Amino acid sequence: MQFHHHGYVSGDPRVLPAAGVGIDRPEDLPDEVDVLIVGSGPAGMIAAAQLSQFPEITTRIVDRRGGRLEVGQADGIQARSVETFQCFGFAERIIAEAYRITEVNFWKPDPNSPDNIVRAARTLDDENGISEFPHLIVNQARVLDYFAEVAAHGPARITPDYGYEFADLEVADEGERPVTVHLRRTVGEQEGSERTVRARYVVGCDGARSPVRRSIGRELVGKDANHAWGVMDVLAVTDFPDIRTKCAIQSRAGSILLIPREGGFLFRMYVDLGEVTPETKAGVRQKTLEEIVAQANAIIHPYSLEVRNVAWHSVYEVGHRLTDKFDDVPADQVGTRTPRVFITGDACHTHSAKAGQGMNVSMQDGWNIAWKLGHVLTERSPESLLDTYSAERQVYAKQLIDFDREWSALMATKPEDLEDPTVLEDFYVKTAEFPAGFMVQNAPSMITAEAAHQDLATGFPVGKRFKSAPAVRVADTNPVHLGHHARADGRWRIYVFADPAAPGEASPTAHLAEWLATSPSSPVVAHTPKEADADTWFDVKVVYQQQHTEIDLGKVPQVFLPRVGPFQLIDYEKVYASDPEHDIFELREIDRGGAVVVVRPDQYVANVLPLSATDELAAFFAGVMRAPRVTSA
Amino acid sequence: MQFHHHGYVSGDPRVLPAAGVGIDRPEDLPDEVDVLIVGSGPAGMIAAAQLSQFPEITTRIVDRRGGRLEVGQADGIQARSVETFQCFGFAERIIAEAYRITEVNFWKPDPNSPDNIVRAARTLDDENGISEFPHLIVNQARVLDYFAEVAAHGPARITPDYGYEFADLEVADEGERPVTVHLRRTVGEQEGSERTVRARYVVGCDGARSPVRRSIGRELVGKDANHAWGVMDVLAVTDFPDIRTKCAIQSRAGSILLIPREGGFLFRMYVDLGEVTPETKAGVRQKTLEEIVAQANAIIHPYSLEVRNVAWHSVYEVGHRLTDKFDDVPADQVGTRTPRVFITGDACHTHSAKAGQGMNVSMQDGWNIAWKLGHVLTERSPESLLDTYSAERQVYAKQLIDFDREWSALMATKPEDLEDPTVLEDFYVKTAEFPAGFMVQNAPSMITAEAAHQDLATGFPVGKRFKSAPAVRVADTNPVHLGHHARADGRWRIYVFADPAAPGEASPTAHLAEWLATSPSSPVVAHTPKEADADTWFDVKVVYQQQHTEIDLGKVPQVFLPRVGPFQLIDYEKVYASDPEHDIFELREIDRGGAVVVVRPDQYVANVLPLSATDELAAFFAGVMRAPRVTSA
Ligand SMILES: Cc1cc2nc3c(=O)[nH]c(=O)nc-3n(C[C@H](O)[C@H](O)[C@H](O)COP(=O)(O)OP(=O)(O)OC[C@H]3O[C@@H](n4cnc5c(N)ncnc54)[C@H](O)[C@@H]3O)c2cc1C
Ligand SMILES: Cc1cc2nc3c(=O)[nH]c(=O)nc-3n(C[C@H](O)[C@H](O)[C@H](O)COP(=O)(O)OP(=O)(O)OC[C@H]3O[C@@H](n4cnc5c(N)ncnc54)[C@H](O)[C@@H]3O)c2cc1C
Repeated sequence: MQFHHHGYVSGDPRVLPAAGVGIDRPEDLPDEVDVLIVGSGPAGMIAAAQLSQFPEITTRIVDRRGGRLEVGQADGIQARSVETFQCFGFAERIIAEAYRITEVNFWKPDPNSPDNIVRAARTLDDENGISEFPHLIVNQARVLDYFAEVAAHGPARITPDYGYEFADLEVADEGERPVTVHLRRTVGEQEGSERTVRARYVVGCDGARSPVRRSIGRELVGKDANHAWGVMDVLAVTDFPDIRTKCAIQSRAGSILLIPREGGFLFRMYVDLGEVTPETKAGVRQKTLEEIVAQANAIIHPYSLEVRNVAWHSVYEVGHRLTDKFDDVPADQVGTRTPRVFITGDACHTHSAKAGQGMNVSMQDGWNIAWKLGHVLTERSPESLLDTYSAERQVYAKQLIDFDREWSALMATKPEDLEDPTVLEDFYVKTAEFPAGFMVQNAPSMITAEAAHQDLATGFPVGKRFKSAPAVRVADTNPVHLGHHARADGRWRIYVFADPAAPGEASPTAHLAEWLATSPSSPVVAHTPKEADADTWFDVKVVYQQQHTEIDLGKVPQVFLPRVGPFQLIDYEKVYASDPEHDIFELREIDRGGAVVVVRPDQYVANVLPLSATDELAAFFAGVMRAPRVTSA
Repeated sequence: MQFHHHGYVSGDPRVLPAAGVGIDRPEDLPDEVDVLIVGSGPAGMIAAAQLSQFPEITTRIVDRRGGRLEVGQADGIQARSVETFQCFGFAERIIAEAYRITEVNFWKPDPNSPDNIVRAARTLDDENGISEFPHLIVNQARVLDYFAEVAAHGPARITPDYGYEFADLEVADEGERPVTVHLRRTVGEQEGSERTVRARYVVGCDGARSPVRRSIGRELVGKDANHAWGVMDVLAVTDFPDIRTKCAIQSRAGSILLIPREGGFLFRMYVDLGEVTPETKAGVRQKTLEEIVAQANAIIHPYSLEVRNVAWHSVYEVGHRLTDKFDDVPADQVGTRTPRVFITGDACHTHSAKAGQGMNVSMQDGWNIAWKLGHVLTERSPESLLDTYSAERQVYAKQLIDFDREWSALMATKPEDLEDPTVLEDFYVKTAEFPAGFMVQNAPSMITAEAAHQDLATGFPVGKRFKSAPAVRVADTNPVHLGHHARADGRWRIYVFADPAAPGEASPTAHLAEWLATSPSSPVVAHTPKEADADTWFDVKVVYQQQHTEIDLGKVPQVFLPRVGPFQLIDYEKVYASDPEHDIFELREIDRGGAVVVVRPDQYVANVLPLSATDELAAFFAGVMRAPRVTSA
């Protein structure tokens, strides 16, 4: 965590100094905003948390709820989400509070006495050690609380405007704030009254029934049948011995997905109510809690369950559904019109609860659109950046749904029935990334290069998220995880993995450093506002192959030791050395000749290049950023 | 973290439900209190945080300051303190925010050019891996903030009463609240006005000049000379390459202790001003910041330092000083009178800043007296428990001061000048525990048994703090650190390290479990209030030698799976298994026949016993606790 560089901060360093529109933020929703986020679920709250780092932008977030979410909804947190929380600065806190999944146990009918269940298998949840972050279970409400804190403590000081229901919107062809949004008060003295807000952009994070989606004429499409689950978060006494372990329970009486919850006592049971069609819907919805508990008892026989307190229950129905495009620009008009309205999360795709994707994918949507809006509205990037949101996330949502279907089918197939035995092996490798949330691979676009030099850093696949690895921070000799020091601050990151030369020697690294610091075509020079510190928009880090004891900081090029803040202090936290016990060059298969790895503000690898490829690097950022800036005054 | 057992908690689980006197806590300082803490430094704030877990007790904490500490004072956090923070629930947060010491570098005059300094050595700060917790640097103000949060979020909802200066006190021979305390308002409209508060007990945490100490007629005694340091917390630009590493710098121009600080930019320099006597005092105190900076520049030559911003500076003088007894009962009257006034921290002992003990030792003092007051005031323990405070902490403070002197002297002695070469080796082993804060070993007393059975668990020395080790929590299969799940909740802990039998088999462990649950002489039965849950005062945990997959929870004795809360839910987090990769029995040298390890509320090992020693266990607790309770209707 870096702070004090603008002078001593006495209190909690997680509370950033208010800036820009955050300084005198009006308490009441203004009539004109830059970004209006509709819905304060996971997609909306991460978007607010990200946009709070952009105090040049007036962002407001409305929700029809009168206050924070209290209970219920999703609870599965993939490792990718915890990685995201790290970037937003609250991973360690939520880990301390959450339930951690280590094993998943499978219960089946006892072959000798099929009315009883027996433990058929114990499996490790993350057999392949796919992430250094854990797989957690914690209520959606707490995830929202943490993002709310980040949003409130960001320089733009964003807090949700509760009690506003989105009714409708229109998008004009021109004007500074072309989106007119109609809202209705849902609480308080003005309940029922209407409000109109004009916005440059609207982000619909308003869940599966999304009126924002409807207002741009898009539809969630999928097969008619939904899968229904009786869900209950309960405090109960039971003799079922695995009650604090995640279990898939199959018995003659049906099946249960058991999710132990945070705090050591609460657990969730998803009692499978099967597929429901529009015809059977009404009946399923009427399932009472008592019926769900009775069914759970039948399923876990010979064990039993006495529910003593119910925190939440619901019949949760969900199908695989998808919207064809995640913004308001018709497919045939992309490039000719700027998208003004975006939809995210459940508003544009829904998944089975079993795969536990809902909240996780929604957060990645919200993050994706938020930093892009930040970059366009601060004039770092052209408006065309916004087209990449739907292009990336709609494609991924589709892959995910296809994959989820295939996965479910394959898991249900006996090995002997498979055509090709290697199908399963191949699938398992992919599968490991699926539940952890690491399957996304963005296709080439203005912000994701063709992987022409992938062989220079095989462990950082272009388009996938930057997978952290250990390194030693030279200045304080701390062993750290390189990627954990990236913050959700909206900056592009340029990781320079050095060639074997030591700092001070003439080398490709030294040459690149000089170019980055001084060349008019260097992205740092060309695109950083003239009056700003060199690290304002680009976070340039170097990782040397030497051990830290062999690095002389006095000889490290200036671009890796930028001067920052009003006192122009040296930022020492950008210079890393290889950790001999966990050599990042080996772990991530980085060419010993060195490589540049460009990483987006949302942690996805955008490009891998040779150290000498200054032209390509310049060209890449010329496509991402607007024309070189001129000094303003 | 355990919660939800009294029903679903929607918000931050770190905020415990208010109870007892915490429910309607008066905002203004009342005229009558149970415990009055004077001073909200580290000693006072940890005491408040601990007493906030006792909502039966009215505790108030006053400070003459008008609000929270903002800057300055100590910053070194030993591993023992981080372990303590873990117990109070904020270790992961403060670790994320603090500077972490990995290496300590030594700079000396360059033999070839003695006006210049050169790096003479790099050493690991914790060569022996003495703790799983790091050695941190973070401002005292932040440590106080975290304790303030724990105090405010505890069931008793304690917040400091700022702006009250302690003037004097008298202790009467009798009466319910025999201590009469005179306070003066230091801020606000009533500035200068006086207040009288009557208390059962007063804890003086009012620093080195302690008027509480003076009011009980005790003195800080030590040699006349103090060591003086020019201390500055600054933001600066320098070419000194190790500016972000802890360094001891010796040069012809003097010496500096360099402490990099949290946040990546700030650092502290202690510029050695040497010994000052009453005669030279005045001169030293007049050292200006400019002079200190100039001296620092002279010392680090050929490097230099340009200070751009000063967060804090001071001339800090401290000597080795000690008070002969830490309460108001004369040594010859111990056992005949109950101590009513206690002094802690700097009020009764001071140390050199170099050893970095001040804040750390003060916290352990505050914790020690606080849980004991909690136990006496809730009638768990007889008043004689309070005599152990001075007995334990005064003795330790003396040892520490002696050790610090010896350490400093030995470190300054050349190896060839030592009489016996093994002196140094022996010393190094002890030394490893010294800077980390693990040197305390309480002598036998009513709460620390004679180490008659130490051989059963050599790794848990009686009198020293319980050194955690890895284990697997059976119910959720999580690999955890056994000791990290102890909370500062005022409970005694009984760790049962099982014999080799599996749960369900007749065995010494099963026999002990039965005895603990049912025998009238079991501490759990004898001393737990009849109307309360079995785990209210005693946290009984078991660690089996088997792997977790071999433990059938259905067969584990009930005493290890207690029913808790209004719904009488099963607490599953007391049953552990050995982690095959880090076998706790091997790591802590526990006899394979099993052992009982009794641990105090402040984490110190109180007793090690064979599983069969039920009589000794009963006798031990009969000495600690009051007579068996009778139901209060
Ligand atoms: C009742 C319910 C139960 C669920 N149960 C599970 C489960 O058991 N397991 C699981 O994995 N997932 C579950 N989910 C799905 C999971 O919560 C979602 O995948 C996830 O929350 C998606 O995040 P989101 O931000 O896209 O939308 P949501 O979290 O749905 O957030 C949408 C937000 O928009 C607000 N909103 C809606 N309409 C308007 C409007 N007109 N104006 C203003 N605000 C509006 C809502 O109040 C809400 O705060 C459940 C969802 C719901 C709604
Ligand atoms: C100015 C200063 C600089 C220091 N610098 C260093 C350093 O550089 N390095 C280091 O290791 N240690 C330093 N220390 C020592 C370190 O801070 C202490 O060892 C540690 O704070 C001891 O904790 P404590 O709780 O016993 O007392 P303190 O932290 O001193 O707390 C005492 C509290 O009591 C309050 N108080 C005092 N008198 C009264 C009264 N009459 N009525 C009400 N309240 C009262 C004070 O306002 C204060 O909040 C410094 C201490 C001071 C005071």
